[in-house]
Amino acid sequence: MSSSNTPTVVVVGAGFGGIFLARQFRKAAVNVILIDRNNYHTFSPLIYQVATAGLNPQDVAYPVRSIFVRDDNIEFLRGEVIAVATDNKQVQVCHNEVAQWVDYDYLVIAAGAQSNDFGNAEVGRFAYSLKTLEDALALRSHIIGLYERGNWDTRDPYHEAATNFVVIGGGPTGLETAGALQELFDNVLRQEYSAFRDNQVNVYLIEATDVLLRPYPERLQASAKQQLEAMGVEVITGHMVTGFSEEGVTLDDGRFIHTYTVVWAAGVKAESLAGQLGVELARGGRIPVEPTLAVTGLDSVYALGDIAYLEDENGQPYAQVIPVAQQQAKRVAKNIMAAMHGDPAETFTYFDKGSMATIGRRRAVAWVFNRLQMTGFLAWAAWLWLHLVTLLGFRNRVMVVINWTWNYLRYYSGGRTLLIEPPDDVPEQIERLKLID
Amino acid sequence: MSSSNTPTVVVVGAGFGGIFLARQFRKAAVNVILIDRNNYHTFSPLIYQVATAGLNPQDVAYPVRSIFVRDDNIEFLRGEVIAVATDNKQVQVCHNEVAQWVDYDYLVIAAGAQSNDFGNAEVGRFAYSLKTLEDALALRSHIIGLYERGNWDTRDPYHEAATNFVVIGGGPTGLETAGALQELFDNVLRQEYSAFRDNQVNVYLIEATDVLLRPYPERLQASAKQQLEAMGVEVITGHMVTGFSEEGVTLDDGRFIHTYTVVWAAGVKAESLAGQLGVELARGGRIPVEPTLAVTGLDSVYALGDIAYLEDENGQPYAQVIPVAQQQAKRVAKNIMAAMHGDPAETFTYFDKGSMATIGRRRAVAWVFNRLQMTGFLAWAAWLWLHLVTLLGFRNRVMVVINWTWNYLRYYSGGRTLLIEPPDDVPEQIERLKLID
Repeated sequence: MSSSNTPTVVVVGAGFGGIFLARQFRKAAVNVILIDRNNYHTFSPLIYQVATAGLNPQDVAYPVRSIFVRDDNIEFLRGEVIAVATDNKQVQVCHNEVAQWVDYDYLVIAAGAQSNDFGNAEVGRFAYSLKTLEDALALRSHIIGLYERGNWDTRDPYHEAATNFVVIGGGPTGLETAGALQELFDNVLRQEYSAFRDNQVNVYLIEATDVLLRPYPERLQASAKQQLEAMGVEVITGHMVTGFSEEGVTLDDGRFIHTYTVVWAAGVKAESLAGQLGVELARGGRIPVEPTLAVTGLDSVYALGDIAYLEDENGQPYAQVIPVAQQQAKRVAKNIMAAMHGDPAETFTYFDKGSMATIGRRRAVAWVFNRLQMTGFLAWAAWLWLHLVTLLGFRNRVMVVINWTWNYLRYYSGGRTLLIEPPDDVPEQIERLKLID
Repeated sequence: MSSSNTPTVVVVGAGFGGIFLARQFRKAAVNVILIDRNNYHTFSPLIYQVATAGLNPQDVAYPVRSIFVRDDNIEFLRGEVIAVATDNKQVQVCHNEVAQWVDYDYLVIAAGAQSNDFGNAEVGRFAYSLKTLEDALALRSHIIGLYERGNWDTRDPYHEAATNFVVIGGGPTGLETAGALQELFDNVLRQEYSAFRDNQVNVYLIEATDVLLRPYPERLQASAKQQLEAMGVEVITGHMVTGFSEEGVTLDDGRFIHTYTVVWAAGVKAESLAGQLGVELARGGRIPVEPTLAVTGLDSVYALGDIAYLEDENGQPYAQVIPVAQQQAKRVAKNIMAAMHGDPAETFTYFDKGSMATIGRRRAVAWVFNRLQMTGFLAWAAWLWLHLVTLLGFRNRVMVVINWTWNYLRYYSGGRTLLIEPPDDVPEQIERLKLID
């Protein structure tokens, strides 16, 4: 794929870091091979909107090849990196049961993070994650299927459990999901499923520590909680879920919540590819990097974003958020160009524009430049604007605006089409049927 | 579900006929129960656009509950009708392995048609149908997966077969699909998959009879063929596919076409529910109806659209097209209201506005009022307009316009995200890998 003299940069991961990095090499005398297991980039901050039927999956997915269709020096390879041979400067990529070795001159690991169950196998069995688009579709299909069935099976225990939603984790994803679930029921499900017209929904947001949005200032933490409660969400802090079953969850104080819908948003860990580098991993399975973002102890290998571990001047690890990945991508690109020219690498510095979390359709908290604190509608408008300017591609942006405006005005959502069926949804053997009438 | 005095109309099928029928009963003193196995209505004429990545699935799917959210007398039930007991005036509906009997006063069967393999089991094994949204997604995933893999496996036989597409059936669906596949390759796949940049695509449209678009006038048949050939499609009439395998198809003259992609658009037959009524079925498995659209020999049961068999004044069966279903729905609604009031039923008359078939992004043939014959861009514009005014729901219409405009200008398509993975796409057992490098 590369001509003999042009150096090849292999980038693993087409998230915000990987895409941003590859873009830096447009028109550079470099061959870039960008590898991802999906042929699309996911706009991850809006995954929860797909899960709660507010957006369609294609609104937050963008085919990677489209982004680089005019860039002859940037090649996309769909596959999973399963091994790294730093001695030979090769990565092994697997696709459809076929594996191949790909040579690199410079390697950048930007493979991101995955949901962290902290070793509790019950989480994977009984809870829905929200890290990937597939996760979102699974949760959406589950909820719609639950209500389609609830319109048939109107017996009490089913309806009670179907209207209890449990969200575990008081970070931005947990807050956003809890708010969106409350709105999904109040504005859509109750209108469209007549058997639920007299039900109330109970959304429980459960956080083990005493506060929501841990890194935020106290005023914003309190505002987030108050805004959620004003919507109707029941916020439970200082308690953990200790038991999972098909019928619900049990808290550490013995409380049992009867539910069929549990969302796990309690934390992330690095993608397991980090373990293939042969270096000792840092907290959360992250790859330790030097301030230049070169992987500690390796030659010509860099890591950035959620999968990399670097501490700031206060000894705190950089947060696993998009702006860190984007700014690190810029630094890595410059340091690779410097290395090619024999120039010294420079260290990463972070410009923190602040953080935001949204709570439903009109509420949010924002902490701009870590100074200005905004709450309510103003914060929500700022969040909306930020997402739109960050969204990749004009067309996706137009779609999202239309979807949002339409949702906002009508609470209509095409996202409710139940397209992915459980395979045994309509049994061929009628003998297996339980007759209820 | 129904109060004791209000009669209940059960409608099976939420296609154009079923939706149109239910709408007639808005504000009427009737309870309507509309049943479909999907919770969405499919805009079936555009399914081929989803299959060829021109539209997203949600653009052509509309949640049924949204259509009737303001109509308290119209209830939607998601499920499959598996039995009809006309003696007891009941249908048995199955959903998630649970079945229930639903009472009716009047029953309308509008369950539509399915792909017809004419008893050839190889069709289902080796060819893709285009009757449902799931069909379309399966074909789309197949094509994108083929090209993702082709960027890896650049050996010759693979590339040759990947660039051969075979479409069987010279009706509107076959023409539309053949044209769309040719454009998909020329404008999208070849741009984005560098390993295919020097390939040509060969789209074969195979029709057993001597003409395309059988019921159309000769001039339009000839124009359709000429327009397809001008695009690059190879039209083969007067030949049948007699053999299918994983490596390709064999024609009745012994010709072998090496291909991984075969689309079956050679005909439809009535949904198998027709067989549950206990009446002798007409040609194509269709339910014979009286000119009033009452099912011959049954009381208070009607059938309409693709699943019903009725001959026009010339002794020809009505075509299985949307306008017939819509106009029959109107007649059935009136005849049910008449029956409730003890008035006599009236017979169905059809107002034929004509037919159209599109061939790619700028070409079509149209036969307006069975008199005016249009070809080329003018026919295409007419086709576009007709589809937009018929599309259910303002939002879907806006989406489709944006998607189309964008596709037309840029040949971009978000529809290429490979979301539904074959389950063994990334094997967990690395031992199973064939190493090719």
